Amino acid sequence: MADDFDLDADRLREECGVFGIFGHVDAAAITALGLHALQHRGQEAAGIVSFDGTRFHSERRLGLVGDHFSKQSTMEGLMGRSAIGHVRYSTTGETILRNVQPLFAELDTGGFAVAHNGNLTNGLTLRRGLVRQGAMCQSTSDTEVVLHLTARSRRPRFIERFTEALNELEGAYAFVGLTNHELVGARDPLGIRPLVLGELDGCYILTSETCALDIIGARFVRDIENGEVVVINSRGLQSIKPSTPREARPCIFEYVYFARPDSIVHGRSVYGVRKNMGAELARESPADADLVVPVPDSGVPAALGFAQESGLPFEFGIIRNHYVGRTFIQPTQSVREVGVRMKHNANRGIVEGKRIVLIDDSIVRGTTSVKIVQMMRDAGASEVHFRISSPPITHPDYYGIDTPDRDKLLAARLNLEEMCAYIGADSLAFLSVDGIYRSMGYAKRDPLRPQFTDHCFTGEYPTRLTDVDGVPDMRQLGLLAEAG
Amino acid sequence: MADDFDLDADRLREECGVFGIFGHVDAAAITALGLHALQHRGQEAAGIVSFDGTRFHSERRLGLVGDHFSKQSTMEGLMGRSAIGHVRYSTTGETILRNVQPLFAELDTGGFAVAHNGNLTNGLTLRRGLVRQGAMCQSTSDTEVVLHLTARSRRPRFIERFTEALNELEGAYAFVGLTNHELVGARDPLGIRPLVLGELDGCYILTSETCALDIIGARFVRDIENGEVVVINSRGLQSIKPSTPREARPCIFEYVYFARPDSIVHGRSVYGVRKNMGAELARESPADADLVVPVPDSGVPAALGFAQESGLPFEFGIIRNHYVGRTFIQPTQSVREVGVRMKHNANRGIVEGKRIVLIDDSIVRGTTSVKIVQMMRDAGASEVHFRISSPPITHPDYYGIDTPDRDKLLAARLNLEEMCAYIGADSLAFLSVDGIYRSMGYAKRDPLRPQFTDHCFTGEYPTRLTDVDGVPDMRQLGLLAEAG
Amino acid sequence: MADDFDLDADRLREECGVFGIFGHVDAAAITALGLHALQHRGQEAAGIVSFDGTRFHSERRLGLVGDHFSKQSTMEGLMGRSAIGHVRYSTTGETILRNVQPLFAELDTGGFAVAHNGNLTNGLTLRRGLVRQGAMCQSTSDTEVVLHLTARSRRPRFIERFTEALNELEGAYAFVGLTNHELVGARDPLGIRPLVLGELDGCYILTSETCALDIIGARFVRDIENGEVVVINSRGLQSIKPSTPREARPCIFEYVYFARPDSIVHGRSVYGVRKNMGAELARESPADADLVVPVPDSGVPAALGFAQESGLPFEFGIIRNHYVGRTFIQPTQSVREVGVRMKHNANRGIVEGKRIVLIDDSIVRGTTSVKIVQMMRDAGASEVHFRISSPPITHPDYYGIDTPDRDKLLAARLNLEEMCAYIGADSLAFLSVDGIYRSMGYAKRDPLRPQFTDHCFTGEYPTRLTDVDGVPDMRQLGLLAEAG
Amino acid sequence: MADDFDLDADRLREECGVFGIFGHVDAAAITALGLHALQHRGQEAAGIVSFDGTRFHSERRLGLVGDHFSKQSTMEGLMGRSAIGHVRYSTTGETILRNVQPLFAELDTGGFAVAHNGNLTNGLTLRRGLVRQGAMCQSTSDTEVVLHLTARSRRPRFIERFTEALNELEGAYAFVGLTNHELVGARDPLGIRPLVLGELDGCYILTSETCALDIIGARFVRDIENGEVVVINSRGLQSIKPSTPREARPCIFEYVYFARPDSIVHGRSVYGVRKNMGAELARESPADADLVVPVPDSGVPAALGFAQESGLPFEFGIIRNHYVGRTFIQPTQSVREVGVRMKHNANRGIVEGKRIVLIDDSIVRGTTSVKIVQMMRDAGASEVHFRISSPPITHPDYYGIDTPDRDKLLAARLNLEEMCAYIGADSLAFLSVDGIYRSMGYAKRDPLRPQFTDHCFTGEYPTRLTDVDGVPDMRQLGLLAEAG
Repeated sequence: MADDFDLDADRLREECGVFGIFGHVDAAAITALGLHALQHRGQEAAGIVSFDGTRFHSERRLGLVGDHFSKQSTMEGLMGRSAIGHVRYSTTGETILRNVQPLFAELDTGGFAVAHNGNLTNGLTLRRGLVRQGAMCQSTSDTEVVLHLTARSRRPRFIERFTEALNELEGAYAFVGLTNHELVGARDPLGIRPLVLGELDGCYILTSETCALDIIGARFVRDIENGEVVVINSRGLQSIKPSTPREARPCIFEYVYFARPDSIVHGRSVYGVRKNMGAELARESPADADLVVPVPDSGVPAALGFAQESGLPFEFGIIRNHYVGRTFIQPTQSVREVGVRMKHNANRGIVEGKRIVLIDDSIVRGTTSVKIVQMMRDAGASEVHFRISSPPITHPDYYGIDTPDRDKLLAARLNLEEMCAYIGADSLAFLSVDGIYRSMGYAKRDPLRPQFTDHCFTGEYPTRLTDVDGVPDMRQLGLLAEAG
Repeated sequence: MADDFDLDADRLREECGVFGIFGHVDAAAITALGLHALQHRGQEAAGIVSFDGTRFHSERRLGLVGDHFSKQSTMEGLMGRSAIGHVRYSTTGETILRNVQPLFAELDTGGFAVAHNGNLTNGLTLRRGLVRQGAMCQSTSDTEVVLHLTARSRRPRFIERFTEALNELEGAYAFVGLTNHELVGARDPLGIRPLVLGELDGCYILTSETCALDIIGARFVRDIENGEVVVINSRGLQSIKPSTPREARPCIFEYVYFARPDSIVHGRSVYGVRKNMGAELARESPADADLVVPVPDSGVPAALGFAQESGLPFEFGIIRNHYVGRTFIQPTQSVREVGVRMKHNANRGIVEGKRIVLIDDSIVRGTTSVKIVQMMRDAGASEVHFRISSPPITHPDYYGIDTPDRDKLLAARLNLEEMCAYIGADSLAFLSVDGIYRSMGYAKRDPLRPQFTDHCFTGEYPTRLTDVDGVPDMRQLGLLAEAG
Repeated sequence: MADDFDLDADRLREECGVFGIFGHVDAAAITALGLHALQHRGQEAAGIVSFDGTRFHSERRLGLVGDHFSKQSTMEGLMGRSAIGHVRYSTTGETILRNVQPLFAELDTGGFAVAHNGNLTNGLTLRRGLVRQGAMCQSTSDTEVVLHLTARSRRPRFIERFTEALNELEGAYAFVGLTNHELVGARDPLGIRPLVLGELDGCYILTSETCALDIIGARFVRDIENGEVVVINSRGLQSIKPSTPREARPCIFEYVYFARPDSIVHGRSVYGVRKNMGAELARESPADADLVVPVPDSGVPAALGFAQESGLPFEFGIIRNHYVGRTFIQPTQSVREVGVRMKHNANRGIVEGKRIVLIDDSIVRGTTSVKIVQMMRDAGASEVHFRISSPPITHPDYYGIDTPDRDKLLAARLNLEEMCAYIGADSLAFLSVDGIYRSMGYAKRDPLRPQFTDHCFTGEYPTRLTDVDGVPDMRQLGLLAEAG
Repeated sequence: MADDFDLDADRLREECGVFGIFGHVDAAAITALGLHALQHRGQEAAGIVSFDGTRFHSERRLGLVGDHFSKQSTMEGLMGRSAIGHVRYSTTGETILRNVQPLFAELDTGGFAVAHNGNLTNGLTLRRGLVRQGAMCQSTSDTEVVLHLTARSRRPRFIERFTEALNELEGAYAFVGLTNHELVGARDPLGIRPLVLGELDGCYILTSETCALDIIGARFVRDIENGEVVVINSRGLQSIKPSTPREARPCIFEYVYFARPDSIVHGRSVYGVRKNMGAELARESPADADLVVPVPDSGVPAALGFAQESGLPFEFGIIRNHYVGRTFIQPTQSVREVGVRMKHNANRGIVEGKRIVLIDDSIVRGTTSVKIVQMMRDAGASEVHFRISSPPITHPDYYGIDTPDRDKLLAARLNLEEMCAYIGADSLAFLSVDGIYRSMGYAKRDPLRPQFTDHCFTGEYPTRLTDVDGVPDMRQLGLLAEAG
């Protein structure tokens, strides 16, 4: 297989996006569109569960939303006026259908389907306890743990069972759930993962990002608050706060990389924040150069901000081929060391003979940074000054972002000078931690009560890490490897 | 869709066939071949689970064994030296992947995969109890109930948990199960559903019929006894009888229709028994005719027996097209009332001008009997004497055979004369109940301790029917309708 | 892949079956049903072309008729009141879509679709001439040659062009063709390949066998005569004899193996002829034995005839598994030398300790005969007397039957005694050449004017073999190997 | 189906891209990569033909290159050291496999595979003549005409036949062809469609754009000249000019829309030319505004040029969702009139309250321009000044670009003021014809000998339009409608 020169190969991955709507005649079709708008949050699999007043209907598929949920035959099966859906990126190599959400269980109180974005830091510990009590686990996902806990609660009403289950969880989560009577949403006590409330044709919507409201022309109502549980039924919306109130601490990476630039997250334009990061970076670490060139597509807004602040011209020095998907067969003979330029190509006419500032949003392992700097030099750039619009990533995530082990993180292995040498740039600079907080509108990071979940940059984890600190090999459900 | 003149449309259906092998280097490949030999027991779906010493691997597919388990890519995933498999016919219209076996669960004692042939008569009652206790049911099959009961047992060792679970079951079952350490088999206390023990290359095999041993050249060792549980591991085979010993009472329908003619069931050649039934029928109800014509393929052995006993020539008066599968688009214009002859055609050259004895193995609804008698008359038969090589089916089954409701059974609705008139035959006769017992080598049916499970002919059910007698609508898992 | 013990592996193969109907509202649906009834003549690919008064519509697929032509979506595209269809068995390893028929070309006179059963003995010679004249050949089939010849004719009317093309052909053919105005049929001057005329709802049908009429309840009208061309249009049927009249000499192998037993070929019941062959064989070569066992399914009618003539009981000593299709992965470890019994199994209960007469319709290479005799011995048969209900095959066919090269034919390599030793039977006998003619109702073969095309048994080819006798490697279109 | 708000719905479409390589050990794999880089020139189907010294191998598929030609199984079949390939966009609704290129024919001189970008203006006329002479046409493509003409030439050598055929053609073409001995390339006398020569590992490459060289790190050698035929074989490259020399007149639309921005076309950077067009437009038609917003992705370079020239900030006011493919089921209830925002969304945070200059590369029907202006207004833009970086399209193309009929072209129906009102912009301006020539480096268009093929803007067609001016309904091959 080709050593594809894929600039996206060194990104962090988000695991999921969720969507739910209650009481709309086109519930499943709208959910499919919402999931399509959230496709950047997970390209591996998608699923929708609908409820028609009597029965639940489920379709779960590997692949893109548009590959399956655009088909008449698939959508016709998803009858009913309420639906929830999920898109997923897998953290492991195992892409298996039984892990595709929403999951469903029949409780004594009726059916319960649930979709989840986030990661529990005590999920394996909870599952081990459940298995010891005779629970049968079918998937390897945290989501199933919540179903079991809800199923096993002895409280009489569904919502009491569900909140009882939530109180056992640690970590980051944004749930949307569907029962015979209601659509429910829940966000973890720190609000690490996002969840917003929208409205269309008088019906409530819960989803991960505002871009999933825009696609269908729905109105943004408000963010679901940290620690809030909302219950939406035919009588309207009820808000519950089952846990002790805490201050919100949303994940800063939504702004850096995950959220779509046209989304509004906690009142801030993602595109605007990214431009701020670029402008801040230009102030912190200017470069004597001719052009500002973004690494497409993620570096584009920051590069615009950098260019506007620095007064240097912004140019597309790297062109992206949008028709990419599969990995091609690699020619056996020498097709240059730099790899096959499947996804990106230098725009030689612009770059040749120029001193460029190359802007990217982050460096994870650094492997593609090496290649892109080399590609710029091959295209004739006389100097390459690499600027990163977020701080160095030094610690892994445990809240639903797929990060490599710490010893794979470039910034955890090397100091700035070493990194610059490794990458082969003429100069290298990252945005500072306080700089990123300034881009968000704060004077600086509050060290006592940080405004964001930022452990990837700082090592300060906002919750306990029960599974990580506990016994190691608890992933026993890896026992069953299933393709079908 | 074409009103296909399908002589097989009025057969009873068996739900399942099972296969398991322990310790063989080609475990999955051999299981695939065994399932192929059992394909007549279920054409809807098939599955195999293997264990490689560390992990379980599962492939479950809708369709025939040969459609999927002949592929290199599918088989390569099924690593390991132990495997179990299952073929399935669905009793309901819902053919859904989550009901395809083997099912798998992770217990506190390790992984447990199980495949089941049979039907529990208290399965819904047990499931309701489990759901009340917080169990999450994912499928609508009885098999999952056994997994849950085993998972919830508080006994320390797996085999104790499994037998504790078995002791709660009523009905008919033949299980093969696979754990991290052993292959297990279990047959219900009356031995209603079959299970045999074989051996290949020094490795034990458990399967539903001997024809699954023959396909791979394996040796038949013995039948698993009624009420017996066998545990096969690296130390050999251990036999357990966890319940009070009772006399065996196997299902007589294995001889009448289900088992393959080349199988040996409880020491009797199925082909030989069917010929006996035909010979006994010739003695009980002879006919003054020119030819004996079987309804293919199920009536063939009995017709041979009838012909040999009566001295009438045996002739294929009906020819079967072996290339059948799908239902074709029906021409809208008149293509004769009798329907499109997709699967069978009269052999006019043989039948024309002749008095024929038409032999079939059973009548369920009678709908195809009408058509076949008419087809013989259209082909010029001067007289059609219909003879059935088993007694009238007057009662439905609850042990894993798909029977229509009682009011759909022809022999439950009409007397012999009315049936003959309905079918349009010149004469009609069934084998007597004592006649079928004579075919099996007994003088007659023992009314106090019947030698076989024969409720379809007699109305005497050998076990309690807890679900049937209990509250009706307990199929709550119908809540989730899933295609994928 | 498994060394599948496939008794059908050593059969001759027919290349094709054809069907056409004119003026029927359900033309394509009826053609699909007709092709399904002809599936035994070709399982590799199928195609239908229809004409809706303005445009032709074509669907051609690899696989069985029922796999594709049962789908609503496929059939909806085949609009119109006239249609022709084709089923195909490939003689070569190359199964490629561009060789699937019917083929279509646009002539100056309008569209022309054609389907062909047979083989030209000067096809390669004609094609070479066409290519030299600048014709572009897209397929490797003889059928395209006929299209080119028709296209290049300078005669004004289509039917004149078509008959002019026919006059250049040597060999065996049965064509059905469809133009903007008519359905045409043509049979070679000796009538080697079959073609019959039927009628349904007042519409004419042309097809290879009467079983394709029976499936839809159509009436058999008559055989198309040798050398006859029929033109069916809105004014009725017109018969043309473009070549010098000769005596018919149909292929005797239609009776031995190809035709379905329920078909009537030239006024003879195929089933009846096969029984005659068995009876004649019993007279010519009786055996001192206990049972007559057919090799299923092709040996069944002859075995019945043998049994009835000899007075020995007829028994199914070999059971066929009807669920076969793909080749399974072969277990690597010893699963007996005899091979995996995928398709057939000995019926040990019947065979054990018995002297059997084993009846098959022919021996080609003899490879499976060895295995089946061994299977009978493994099942305990004390003696195996092998009887073949046709003469030894000593010469290859060039008229549309797939025969191996002469040096692969067992009867061309060995004498009777050697064959018996090779196969491992206790005795071996074939039906004599005169015996097969007696089975057909003649006193004997007329050596001067043989009643049938029988070169496989006699070496007397009824036409010139221009390609065979000419320059060897003329298959230049093998130049393009295409999967898609 | 959803009224997808697809900004790409109103683009012109290019029909094809071609690629060929001679003598490389990885010929097919390299061709697949080259076609992938040309995917923007045709997304409907792709094909590769290779030659292994003895046989040609062909794979042709509907869909993207990466969907099929990344598979090991597909690529393994494409053996040999020479290969040509083709990507295609269909001008008609009929997407059918037999029209997918490369096409192949066996000539008297050997095999000949050919792939074509362009359109003949006398293709139908030539085909009619061929059919009259008995040629069998299998496809509806012009390419087949060239095969027939080459096949029918009476000249002795292949290259003489091919150039004889070329001399009968009118219109625009860029061919790459493969024979048993050589790779050939040909460009029409005016050089309307592009073709370049490259080199990799000492092997020649012919392809439509330089970006297909870059992807594999191949070296650009030169443009193939207008009217040039090149023959590449083991002895090297030979150049032929079979027709009277004329001045080149390449299609200007390659610069406006078709070519990838990183390609170099006739010595000019496409990205650079597009920026020039934007800058020229800013000079010709400035706007009093706050922001320059490109219509993504095609308006981006021109918008950058406009912004740099005007000094206004460049901002992504419209965000593109890269995960698009299928058309989703449309919600039946009101999801706003503006349509579902599947592919694009307004970046409200940037646009709100601003006066924007919206830059697009062209207007065809104008349908999406209406929507995008409305989307900007919905997002709060206070003024929308629409600027188009090419002249008004007033005439259809007949050289391989899919243009609507003239009465569908907005600029052919309305004057500038009417267009502005129709689109709903505050102001509207197009680049002038002389302005676009200035962007190309000329002082102005030379009215006597125009430097480019520019009939879409000027109505001056560079060749005869034989088919258009001739008899209408000549598309007789539409007679056969085939899905497979």
